[in-house]
Amino acid sequence: MIKEGLLLVISGPSGTGKGTVCKELLKIEKDIKLSISATTREPRNGERNGVNYHFLEKDVFERQIEQGEFLEYAKVYDNYYGTPKKYVIDEIKEGNNVLLEIDIQGALQVKEKYPKGIFIFILPPSMNELKKRIVGRGTESEEAIQKRFGSALDEINYVKEYDYFVINDEVKEAVKKIRALIRAENCKVSENIEEIISKFKEEISC
Amino acid sequence: MIKEGLLLVISGPSGTGKGTVCKELLKIEKDIKLSISATTREPRNGERNGVNYHFLEKDVFERQIEQGEFLEYAKVYDNYYGTPKKYVIDEIKEGNNVLLEIDIQGALQVKEKYPKGIFIFILPPSMNELKKRIVGRGTESEEAIQKRFGSALDEINYVKEYDYFVINDEVKEAVKKIRALIRAENCKVSENIEEIISKFKEEISC
Repeated sequence: MIKEGLLLVISGPSGTGKGTVCKELLKIEKDIKLSISATTREPRNGERNGVNYHFLEKDVFERQIEQGEFLEYAKVYDNYYGTPKKYVIDEIKEGNNVLLEIDIQGALQVKEKYPKGIFIFILPPSMNELKKRIVGRGTESEEAIQKRFGSALDEINYVKEYDYFVINDEVKEAVKKIRALIRAENCKVSENIEEIISKFKEEISC
Repeated sequence: MIKEGLLLVISGPSGTGKGTVCKELLKIEKDIKLSISATTREPRNGERNGVNYHFLEKDVFERQIEQGEFLEYAKVYDNYYGTPKKYVIDEIKEGNNVLLEIDIQGALQVKEKYPKGIFIFILPPSMNELKKRIVGRGTESEEAIQKRFGSALDEINYVKEYDYFVINDEVKEAVKKIRALIRAENCKVSENIEEIISKFKEEISC
């Protein structure tokens, strides 16, 4: 029997740098599989199907919703976004760890469907720092910045639904922590008890 | 408010090398405090009071048992051995991590009194390897070896009472895993939720 892989769900408020953290993590832990989202929005310049997103027609997406083929999905304005379940479950069953980088609402849906996942909440070092990062993007109006900041503040309350929190002060340090979490999860007795007992008992009976 | 330290309880069957693992861990993680056991047995050559053990008179030890001053204790033949509670609790309250290297029966007693502890079970890489290690000591009769080996086998069942298991194949690797567990425990939301929420909310209300 192959030992199942872990589902790592990394999320947090916008502006905490979870994207960068995930990218660095994947560079170091090359065996982790990244789950690619599906969407019905048009590909932007340079985006490739199956790499950035699985680009689906709206009717296909809706049929897949009905057939329960998403671990989570959401409609944002007129477009759907979601996480196809099959890829994630297949990889886990093969013994591979899978990474989902996802917003908080999505993570909560995944938690309902797959509570065994490891839910990791990325936090900014401080709210001031978060504000600086949001402003620093330089792409948004003052009003949009305030709105984004306000919702980040609300979103921090959802940390209580997660298993672990990681403060993203230094990306390197944050990645180190996530790697430690993976290592620790693999040492949990509760997830491995049958394997441990059989390993030592079988050996003896031979 | 100071964040409490962790109580790390490391145990496992004899011959798994938990002593070596603990020694190496303490060399690297210099901030971890080692709990020193108390005993009523005579000091052996070179053993120092307060370093190897706290050497106590029998009547003192028994009075301390009555007063609930031990996290765990046992009588082995005519001598008592135990873990003084005060030192451990004081250090934890100060924010320090404390290490207890202890046998399985002792660990189970500690778990009753301090369930928040991190209970780590050291396993041999295999039962064959364990036998080799027990034989390798070269100090025991065939009968004693068989007895020790048999009880090690029974003891492995207790792994289910622990939070984590660590296979001691390479000491360096085992230490790495324990360090990862400590890091992971410090990222657990459940142990830090008030701190996280207040950190971000207070900052905002200022």
